[in-house]
Amino acid sequence: MKAKLAQLKTLLAEKDDLDKVAALLEWDQQVNMPHDGAEARGNQMGTIQRLAHEKLTSPMVGDLLKELKVHAKSLDPDSDDARFIKVANRDYKTAVKVPGDFVAEFSKITTLSHGVWTAARAEDNFSIFQPSLEKIVDMVRRYAEFFAPYDHVYDPLLDIYEPGMKTSEVQAIFNGLRSEQVALLKTIRNSPQVENDFLYQPYDVQKQWDFGVEVISQYGYDWNRGRQDKSAHPFTTNFSINDVRITTRFLPDFIGSALFSTMHEGGHALYEQGVSQIYERTPLGGGASLAIHESQSRMFENLIGRSQQFWSHFYSRLQEFFPAQLSNVDLDTFYKGINKVEPSLIRVEADEATYNLHVMLRLEIEIALLEGNLEVKDLPEAWNSRMEDYLGVTPPNDAQGVLQDVHWSSGLFGYFSTYALGNLVSAQLWEVMEKDMPAMLEQMSRGEFGEILDWVRTRIHVHGRKYDPQELVQQVTGSKIDPLAYMRYLTSKYSQIYGF
Amino acid sequence: MKAKLAQLKTLLAEKDDLDKVAALLEWDQQVNMPHDGAEARGNQMGTIQRLAHEKLTSPMVGDLLKELKVHAKSLDPDSDDARFIKVANRDYKTAVKVPGDFVAEFSKITTLSHGVWTAARAEDNFSIFQPSLEKIVDMVRRYAEFFAPYDHVYDPLLDIYEPGMKTSEVQAIFNGLRSEQVALLKTIRNSPQVENDFLYQPYDVQKQWDFGVEVISQYGYDWNRGRQDKSAHPFTTNFSINDVRITTRFLPDFIGSALFSTMHEGGHALYEQGVSQIYERTPLGGGASLAIHESQSRMFENLIGRSQQFWSHFYSRLQEFFPAQLSNVDLDTFYKGINKVEPSLIRVEADEATYNLHVMLRLEIEIALLEGNLEVKDLPEAWNSRMEDYLGVTPPNDAQGVLQDVHWSSGLFGYFSTYALGNLVSAQLWEVMEKDMPAMLEQMSRGEFGEILDWVRTRIHVHGRKYDPQELVQQVTGSKIDPLAYMRYLTSKYSQIYGF
Repeated sequence: MKAKLAQLKTLLAEKDDLDKVAALLEWDQQVNMPHDGAEARGNQMGTIQRLAHEKLTSPMVGDLLKELKVHAKSLDPDSDDARFIKVANRDYKTAVKVPGDFVAEFSKITTLSHGVWTAARAEDNFSIFQPSLEKIVDMVRRYAEFFAPYDHVYDPLLDIYEPGMKTSEVQAIFNGLRSEQVALLKTIRNSPQVENDFLYQPYDVQKQWDFGVEVISQYGYDWNRGRQDKSAHPFTTNFSINDVRITTRFLPDFIGSALFSTMHEGGHALYEQGVSQIYERTPLGGGASLAIHESQSRMFENLIGRSQQFWSHFYSRLQEFFPAQLSNVDLDTFYKGINKVEPSLIRVEADEATYNLHVMLRLEIEIALLEGNLEVKDLPEAWNSRMEDYLGVTPPNDAQGVLQDVHWSSGLFGYFSTYALGNLVSAQLWEVMEKDMPAMLEQMSRGEFGEILDWVRTRIHVHGRKYDPQELVQQVTGSKIDPLAYMRYLTSKYSQIYGF
Repeated sequence: MKAKLAQLKTLLAEKDDLDKVAALLEWDQQVNMPHDGAEARGNQMGTIQRLAHEKLTSPMVGDLLKELKVHAKSLDPDSDDARFIKVANRDYKTAVKVPGDFVAEFSKITTLSHGVWTAARAEDNFSIFQPSLEKIVDMVRRYAEFFAPYDHVYDPLLDIYEPGMKTSEVQAIFNGLRSEQVALLKTIRNSPQVENDFLYQPYDVQKQWDFGVEVISQYGYDWNRGRQDKSAHPFTTNFSINDVRITTRFLPDFIGSALFSTMHEGGHALYEQGVSQIYERTPLGGGASLAIHESQSRMFENLIGRSQQFWSHFYSRLQEFFPAQLSNVDLDTFYKGINKVEPSLIRVEADEATYNLHVMLRLEIEIALLEGNLEVKDLPEAWNSRMEDYLGVTPPNDAQGVLQDVHWSSGLFGYFSTYALGNLVSAQLWEVMEKDMPAMLEQMSRGEFGEILDWVRTRIHVHGRKYDPQELVQQVTGSKIDPLAYMRYLTSKYSQIYGF
């Protein structure tokens, strides 16, 4: 049995190599690739992804798993080997349910749709994108059918990003959250407002870069195992636990974008760098789920990076970088400015108080599309009316409305809710951290993050994909994902800033 | 038969994807990869290379080729399809002769040896490297035996880089060349010397970069299909005909290094960018051989880039970039300075008059090692005595002698002579170009390279690997590779510079 386990590990190590190679192809495309290299890159990506899929779904993997699943029953269910078999089996079962032809067709359609969506957004014309999106929704439904029977048609999609999570669970969480978020927003909007004009000035891009590097270095990002580059859309990727890279976008007239996105991607990168080295080249490498990943990025971006303590240490340093812009802005004004709440049209620019509302809107629309209660052609109307309900703003056009996000054109249905769930988890973890580390806030105000990193590392990062996300949250916080901690966090923070 | 050809093309297109992916893994390792990413990268490279080898040597490829070879007899032997079958068959036959186990073992040994060589060179201690090199020479001999019977044990190695070329041919060429090069060097050394101190001053690296970009842009390098980066050792690589990248190393106190290496890599890149688009993802993509490749890089570096005409256009521009360094250096002094001949220890720094002598020395040593007429332990002595004979200099240590080049530690036997052959071919082409394009030198002195690029593009670049190197040279120049044109070029150039 040992030999069979070793054989499976070798096969899946090679599968992991191919996945990592695909990630490098993607990173290079976003960061370096010259314009005309795209067609060849598409072919290379197709070949690598097909080989990876073939490797995972090979009869040999299936046979080994069948035998090893029996063997696993005699193992400690929490041992690495038992979990390795469990996670590998889950990956295998998901992959074999989806025919290779479907994967190829879906990949082709979404590649084409991406271009169509770009054009539709540029021309602010939803009808250009509508036929593509109809095809994608149709294929997404077909994808779900491969996993029938299911409790809810949306479950197989959610499961891609949040293993083990059910649609009904997310709906229950969001139902509890929605009215509270809307009410909090109303309270904030009825309070005296804060200023943040000073964030919108010319800020030298190289200095923005240098300050961001200082911050994430202080967080504990290991530059021997990573690097930073510029790209149109910030992201984190990794080709190994020892090669975890982030990208950042710099706006020359607004410091908020690069500043917080560097911290955000830094949080993702700390997670990947913190996975146990023994999980390298195994299915247990990587993050437990997108929500858990987002809990780390949002923690280092918001709970730490937008806190009073953080800036009581870093603000004077930022002023040294930008004396002309900030010497007349005091710490309190700066702190309030970076936490200004303003209902806005664009999710990626949303503040902490409104962000989740953007996500809920998308989740409801996705579920309605999948259930057949909403047609693609009626999307703009459904979008705009929900924007009015939840945020009190109406998009002046579809480019700033239903066409704003890339996800649907890439076939990423089931993805959005993980952004909000990540926020909730970050606050749940934070409450435990405050109890476990009474000196934590004081350390932050001295620019010390060693104990914080050690805490998330030993409780979250090191485990990689060993535990399901809900299981992991339960294990660390004593409860499943719920919205209470996040609402406590928001209320406490904004009541202080807005004085209510 | 059409269907079988299409099937083979599909299989080899995927093999090409894997080769290109391996090239990206290598490029990223040299240019971007953080230090600790090396181990994972080694695994990924191993997996991709094994899959590429499996793809090429699969029984399906063998069966298709067997049938298509018969079919090819009814085709025009110069048609793309006939040549596709011929080149694919050659690649296949070479690959199947070498067992996969040998490939894996060789890869492992050379990977380890690279580190050993680095240490040996750093410590200037050949005996550290000796055991590794003995193993490599042994494996290289075993490699040759896979191709027995052969005319000469060195033939299978040479054939990797110069398809169809025989050791006896190279020896005949070099035998004719050696005494003439030594004699020319003596004449130059007995003439009044020229100065080049002004090249060794602080030169701002960004400005060096910008000037190099101007030059290769003017040459015709297409930035929509390429990019430049910095790396420890300059090189050119490509992931498609439409994604051809160069790297350059910049020395802050010597302008000669980056200046000419940018032109050199630019020449390689022009070749790859000029291959016919219909050869994309086929075995006919890429350069005909290393010598033909080097003929292009050396042409744009030396015949063009170190010519009077080139600098009569570009020198005033270079002076604008570096007024403090060059305003007091006149064009003639600069031209002579960049062409200064000085026997030196290091091949990569050698001038045009001494470069080939460095190569001959290596070729003779490689052949003697393969023939068994020289033992690895006696290498330093063999090296130093030849340096004295050919160049009149003796290395003060092995780091600047036998340990200077990376090639042997990487198992690259059979490679060196292509550097010298490329020089010879560049001059042979040049003589035809001067006849075909009477206005060529005048165009160069106006900074115009369009007709030159068009000439090499239609006669060399566009054909990719369709023709064997000797066949291609014959076709374009009317004779095989020979040293006469190169000696005429050197004699004419240096007699003018050194006044003999």
